[in-house]
Amino acid sequence: MSEFKTIEVKQSVLEDNDRRADELRRELKENKTFLLNLMSSPGSGKTTTLRQTIAALKDEFRIGVMEADIDSDVDAAAIEKTGAKVIQLHTGGMCHLDAHMTRQGLENLGTEDVDLAILENIGNLVCPAEFDTGAVKNAMILSVPEGHDKPLKYPLMFTICDVLLINKIDVMPVFDFNLEKCREYALRRNPSMKIIPICARTGEGMQEWIDWLREQTRAWIG
Amino acid sequence: MSEFKTIEVKQSVLEDNDRRADELRRELKENKTFLLNLMSSPGSGKTTTLRQTIAALKDEFRIGVMEADIDSDVDAAAIEKTGAKVIQLHTGGMCHLDAHMTRQGLENLGTEDVDLAILENIGNLVCPAEFDTGAVKNAMILSVPEGHDKPLKYPLMFTICDVLLINKIDVMPVFDFNLEKCREYALRRNPSMKIIPICARTGEGMQEWIDWLREQTRAWIG
Repeated sequence: MSEFKTIEVKQSVLEDNDRRADELRRELKENKTFLLNLMSSPGSGKTTTLRQTIAALKDEFRIGVMEADIDSDVDAAAIEKTGAKVIQLHTGGMCHLDAHMTRQGLENLGTEDVDLAILENIGNLVCPAEFDTGAVKNAMILSVPEGHDKPLKYPLMFTICDVLLINKIDVMPVFDFNLEKCREYALRRNPSMKIIPICARTGEGMQEWIDWLREQTRAWIG
Repeated sequence: MSEFKTIEVKQSVLEDNDRRADELRRELKENKTFLLNLMSSPGSGKTTTLRQTIAALKDEFRIGVMEADIDSDVDAAAIEKTGAKVIQLHTGGMCHLDAHMTRQGLENLGTEDVDLAILENIGNLVCPAEFDTGAVKNAMILSVPEGHDKPLKYPLMFTICDVLLINKIDVMPVFDFNLEKCREYALRRNPSMKIIPICARTGEGMQEWIDWLREQTRAWIG
């Protein structure tokens, strides 16, 4: 029996999403909660990466996860097994989360006992990039089977992310994936982007990602 | 030097997309042009599948391709090498194509000498499913690395597609992909969906897909 709450989030009718996002970040700062917005294509390994991340950091931070999905609960059920606090956000067909929807999620999650909140956004490389959720940092996962040309095709997503995890590097020999070209294309969009090749399933490269997230969280919550 | 045209398509301000889509289908019928709308996640193999499809059918049908992308030309350049007529559609950040945008594309492609027109939609499992493009049939590709649970998470896409190609089946042993579960979940969304496992790279399963597409095209153009 699953214990997590499921919330139907509604998009704001107001168009001032940027103002709402800034407001939310200010409150997160006062509240000493770091919010990470994690984005990717469907099936790139967000949930597996998240499970490993929680396992590595759960003794250092109180972690809360918001699993956004159109209408299933499979990811929240997987995260619940890690022991982290989790809620499911249903967007009712919406392709992204905005700051207002993220606020509804955080209010339902409850942030008073959360140091590190993670929003697993809808699997989509287009729309989530267009809406500031109020997160402190944006992270994205690109998986090897998707191909190294994705920064050329989904430019905004690569522009707005602070960190790029290149996942499933264990299958690089099977796919025609050029890591150096991927780096070059991604840095063309965003020269200050941190790029970390990982394999969430085997743990390869995960230490560098965990260190980055620990440092960002500590710097924010003080 | 690339020869294909690049068109900036604009979304209709009108909300009557369904009416426009039906109108477009009527005109395609009169014009004896079959339009296939091909959708998938980023990196699932749409362009590779399309190249193989063109190679198999180019002696039977006059083929025209519209490559929709946010702002790159990499797919149109790949398709151009097949010898098919191709144009690039740029959506300027938009996450999907609607019937009005598709009409702009078809007008620029020119359908008078095209029996089989194929729209390669934006790589996205959410938004393209919400807008009828005016296509005669909808096809989607799900690739093995994305996981067999995707019909649970992106229900509308699986509901509206007539055919599902499960691509990259050559890497099934590497990934934890359950073909029977995938079938079951997809048919739950759409019991009449045709499901064809393929490997576009090696050609496995492609004959069944080509036969389906040939039959549909012939039935439409008469």
